[in-house]
Amino acid sequence: MLKPPVAIVMGSQSDWPTMRLAAETLETLGVEYEARIVSAHRTPERMVDFASNARTDGVKVIIAGAGGAAHLPGMIAAMTTLPVFGVPVRSKALSGVDSLYSIVQMPGGVPVGTLAIGEPGAINAALLAASVLSLGDEDLADRLEAHRERQRDAVPQFPSDSE
Amino acid sequence: MLKPPVAIVMGSQSDWPTMRLAAETLETLGVEYEARIVSAHRTPERMVDFASNARTDGVKVIIAGAGGAAHLPGMIAAMTTLPVFGVPVRSKALSGVDSLYSIVQMPGGVPVGTLAIGEPGAINAALLAASVLSLGDEDLADRLEAHRERQRDAVPQFPSDSE
Amino acid sequence: MLKPPVAIVMGSQSDWPTMRLAAETLETLGVEYEARIVSAHRTPERMVDFASNARTDGVKVIIAGAGGAAHLPGMIAAMTTLPVFGVPVRSKALSGVDSLYSIVQMPGGVPVGTLAIGEPGAINAALLAASVLSLGDEDLADRLEAHRERQRDAVPQFPSDSE
Amino acid sequence: MLKPPVAIVMGSQSDWPTMRLAAETLETLGVEYEARIVSAHRTPERMVDFASNARTDGVKVIIAGAGGAAHLPGMIAAMTTLPVFGVPVRSKALSGVDSLYSIVQMPGGVPVGTLAIGEPGAINAALLAASVLSLGDEDLADRLEAHRERQRDAVPQFPSDSE
Amino acid sequence: MLKPPVAIVMGSQSDWPTMRLAAETLETLGVEYEARIVSAHRTPERMVDFASNARTDGVKVIIAGAGGAAHLPGMIAAMTTLPVFGVPVRSKALSGVDSLYSIVQMPGGVPVGTLAIGEPGAINAALLAASVLSLGDEDLADRLEAHRERQRDAVPQFPSDSE
Amino acid sequence: MLKPPVAIVMGSQSDWPTMRLAAETLETLGVEYEARIVSAHRTPERMVDFASNARTDGVKVIIAGAGGAAHLPGMIAAMTTLPVFGVPVRSKALSGVDSLYSIVQMPGGVPVGTLAIGEPGAINAALLAASVLSLGDEDLADRLEAHRERQRDAVPQFPSDSE
Amino acid sequence: MLKPPVAIVMGSQSDWPTMRLAAETLETLGVEYEARIVSAHRTPERMVDFASNARTDGVKVIIAGAGGAAHLPGMIAAMTTLPVFGVPVRSKALSGVDSLYSIVQMPGGVPVGTLAIGEPGAINAALLAASVLSLGDEDLADRLEAHRERQRDAVPQFPSDSE
Amino acid sequence: MLKPPVAIVMGSQSDWPTMRLAAETLETLGVEYEARIVSAHRTPERMVDFASNARTDGVKVIIAGAGGAAHLPGMIAAMTTLPVFGVPVRSKALSGVDSLYSIVQMPGGVPVGTLAIGEPGAINAALLAASVLSLGDEDLADRLEAHRERQRDAVPQFPSDSE
Repeated sequence: MLKPPVAIVMGSQSDWPTMRLAAETLETLGVEYEARIVSAHRTPERMVDFASNARTDGVKVIIAGAGGAAHLPGMIAAMTTLPVFGVPVRSKALSGVDSLYSIVQMPGGVPVGTLAIGEPGAINAALLAASVLSLGDEDLADRLEAHRERQRDAVPQFPSDSE
Repeated sequence: MLKPPVAIVMGSQSDWPTMRLAAETLETLGVEYEARIVSAHRTPERMVDFASNARTDGVKVIIAGAGGAAHLPGMIAAMTTLPVFGVPVRSKALSGVDSLYSIVQMPGGVPVGTLAIGEPGAINAALLAASVLSLGDEDLADRLEAHRERQRDAVPQFPSDSE
Repeated sequence: MLKPPVAIVMGSQSDWPTMRLAAETLETLGVEYEARIVSAHRTPERMVDFASNARTDGVKVIIAGAGGAAHLPGMIAAMTTLPVFGVPVRSKALSGVDSLYSIVQMPGGVPVGTLAIGEPGAINAALLAASVLSLGDEDLADRLEAHRERQRDAVPQFPSDSE
Repeated sequence: MLKPPVAIVMGSQSDWPTMRLAAETLETLGVEYEARIVSAHRTPERMVDFASNARTDGVKVIIAGAGGAAHLPGMIAAMTTLPVFGVPVRSKALSGVDSLYSIVQMPGGVPVGTLAIGEPGAINAALLAASVLSLGDEDLADRLEAHRERQRDAVPQFPSDSE
Repeated sequence: MLKPPVAIVMGSQSDWPTMRLAAETLETLGVEYEARIVSAHRTPERMVDFASNARTDGVKVIIAGAGGAAHLPGMIAAMTTLPVFGVPVRSKALSGVDSLYSIVQMPGGVPVGTLAIGEPGAINAALLAASVLSLGDEDLADRLEAHRERQRDAVPQFPSDSE
Repeated sequence: MLKPPVAIVMGSQSDWPTMRLAAETLETLGVEYEARIVSAHRTPERMVDFASNARTDGVKVIIAGAGGAAHLPGMIAAMTTLPVFGVPVRSKALSGVDSLYSIVQMPGGVPVGTLAIGEPGAINAALLAASVLSLGDEDLADRLEAHRERQRDAVPQFPSDSE
Repeated sequence: MLKPPVAIVMGSQSDWPTMRLAAETLETLGVEYEARIVSAHRTPERMVDFASNARTDGVKVIIAGAGGAAHLPGMIAAMTTLPVFGVPVRSKALSGVDSLYSIVQMPGGVPVGTLAIGEPGAINAALLAASVLSLGDEDLADRLEAHRERQRDAVPQFPSDSE
Repeated sequence: MLKPPVAIVMGSQSDWPTMRLAAETLETLGVEYEARIVSAHRTPERMVDFASNARTDGVKVIIAGAGGAAHLPGMIAAMTTLPVFGVPVRSKALSGVDSLYSIVQMPGGVPVGTLAIGEPGAINAALLAASVLSLGDEDLADRLEAHRERQRDAVPQFPSDSE
């Protein structure tokens, strides 16, 4: 049985408060996904299994979140040619700069499309995944466009003191 | 007439020595592209035209490179729902940290998949674009896989003093 | 009907707690202003409209605040030759360093006069706007001078434990 | 006798290779200026004289460049209510990050509009000064607009390998 | 009438919670001091008065604390040849890195001996001032030595869970 | 047949000019080693093979050097309980800060003992490996002590202008 | 009488909340240790005594934690050829970046294997010490392997909202 | 026999090109000094000897330069109550930021007055040492004042293209 088109993986349960925003955004857009904990450092075999089989399992896009020495997105990208989008989770001491550098500074040959540190990055990873899927799904393209319009219309004209 | 599936845009002629690596990588993979100079700051109308019409022009994926206060990738992403991949070009004073932050730290709602600073980022933007296109093009998926294998086989077993 | 001489724009309602200090400072100095939300990423058309028409609308000086990948000040500056002053709003993960770099590191040709991160920057953007307007308004120049003197006189001679 | 409307001051002869770009940009725009060396640390009396008398001397806008612990722009701003624009000159060890922080992080009450580190900052300080002066000089506003258009028209459509 | 040998100056009342540790340390060591608020930006004349007259007023060592674009220590050092020790006060957005760079990165010719960011820096500025005065005051040298010994003896041998 | 007690692995041939200093230091100390290229990103299977079998192959200590998003040391540490020492190789844009953060900021549970960026780190990784091996090899402990003494004796008393 | 094989030293009582995680991890693994406060700056003689005699006292591995200008790990490493592992404790102003740089950037010749900033670093220093000792203690090697397996098995498959 | 009043110590011969500027500045001011190489890491005993005996040897002020994990100034300060001024020498990978943090971020109780990174810091350490000595030497105070005046008079009024 094939897996949903988007896989959300994260290095630890503690990444979920960030990464659930990716899940919720995909739900809003009507995109199916599966969320899993796959630790590059504590469960390397699970990671190898996941990444090596992702394409044949029917996964189309992988969203991977991790913090600190965040190796998960890059290591998954090393074992699949599917698009991998990385979310640097905020870390305690360095506030996610370590996560960002560990994810974005990949060597030429193995790409990870990296989003912003923390919650905005999780939301945007989902939007980018939907954008990729929308290339082959006109309905999703329309939903994405509608989502963008709602977002635009939700911006007030004037700042409000009470908010 | 439709445009090629990948558009490579950059803020300035001076970004080309970096961004041509994206072009060369796409050529290696047999993916058609068009490279254009579109400056967010000096030619904002050109940018609006390009971004607003990209989807209807047949573009599938946009690669945008810029340096310093690198607004091009994010502004294009604000005007299209196509996938946008950003390449932070090295800057003179801050070595591309400014470019990286300006590209990657997008607010939730408007995603830019960001690659590494400089040349590796340009190469990887092309590979990521190809990866996205390969979801609907099995031949390209095979070429991408073959490219990955050649890359793997090119890694020597032992370091060499003469190199 | 002409707009007030100072326009305060910001990328999001969440910037208002910072940017209202600009508004309050202008009120203290008796300078008229209009505060608007104009998001470079979520409402790019609104931004283009605002910036392109600002000079003919009677705006003299633009104060623009934004956080993270803060593109608003620079994009407005790209579409007007009015003076634009940028306020980097503190961001969650990077505390405003990303906002600062995104605003201040503009390429040669499109200037944004950048103020300090956060509240002091908002206050100073208003003072700088008043300073610019005071070149053609002697009364305002006097009020600005008086404000500076009050500020000087408010500095106590000795530190106080009770404060 | 009144001084020209723009004063370019810098902390040291070694800042001139950067700051001359401000001078040249003003010349291109037909704006008169005077360039002086005024060191906050080595010639503090000269700085006090300059800043205290600038407004009565007929100066309208001050451009101040300095590097390292760059106190010149902020100290001048402390002694005049004229608009002061600061240019962080690249420093040897910290590449201008120290200059940037020393200039931009002014406390609320004393504004310095800060431009980019190095040459782009010098060019933009001149453009911003001209922008300020153009509020009371329609001819200059036209020249500034024309300069912007020439800048726009100089951006090529396609990157060139030979350049 | 001569002033006490150590002058503690700070840019703002808000620096006092940090700088009072310098005062308390001097009291512990039996060194007389005067604490004043002298703002480089808001009271530049007061600063010029203070610094120019410090040596003839009998001051021997100056401790200057400031935050953000911290110009006070360096500007005082520019107007006296007395030893000046600078304390970078923690700032809101940049946690004192801006204060540190603004104080420590002085150009060759005008020295400021810089201490650690925040409270430890304030304590150490006092100890360093006492150390300087102890060169001409054997009693103080003894008290400083005794203080160092008490400090050494206060270090427990083993960590304690209850503390 | 067992492998030598120290394995030096690196992500790329381009790391060898740095990592050969580890090899040379081990030779000086009479410690046998094998140097291999094992790329986490380009040859992940080779890395899994190497790391999983290292202990049974007779390896005692692993020295791993990598640059940029430097995942090699941490991924090897995830697949063995042998001591792993990481050397952050200088990178082009970020000078090795990315390499350092990617190697040192490992999550609790999977340790990598990290050395300095670049050449000093490579030398010290070898010394640390020898130090570990010396716990079970008195001869090596003596050679290490002698090396330390030669190092001490090579420090001149006075600086020399001609050097 | 010989000391336990692992010595945990730290610069101050305030480091204990971090360093106790090293102690607890060693207890979990059944490795004996002694925890001491040894301040490089306040008790330099104690430090010299400790470090110079560590090898003859029977210590095998030293874990040293310190914050700010963290000199303890490097100075101990300068006075022993035992393996020294350094833990950068988070500091108030710079969040441990100062601690990290002060510990990891040792010159070639005197190695300190550095772990992550804060708690993960303390845990990993203990694991690395155990890893070193396991080279000569098969039982410990087995316990370490079992610990790694428990760690792996504790990673859930799916993120949980309730956690 | 007593030593000269100023001791210049540095961690390595490679620091001399920086630290000789301290020596030359002292010569210009007619202050006697002795320059020595004292490595905290390679010659810790020499360092202990130097620092412990400095006061009784007649040294008044210590200037200590070091790079990277720059422990020399702080460790000397831990073993003497004389004033210690630290010069962060530029390092290869981190350009002296590591040196600066290692020197300036001393804990409360052990002060090091820190100067700028590199050459300006070496010059200023000498000026600060002279400033300290001038408190008990009126002739030196006069020479210092004269030096300051020459420095002021050497600042040209206008920038020069030919320089």
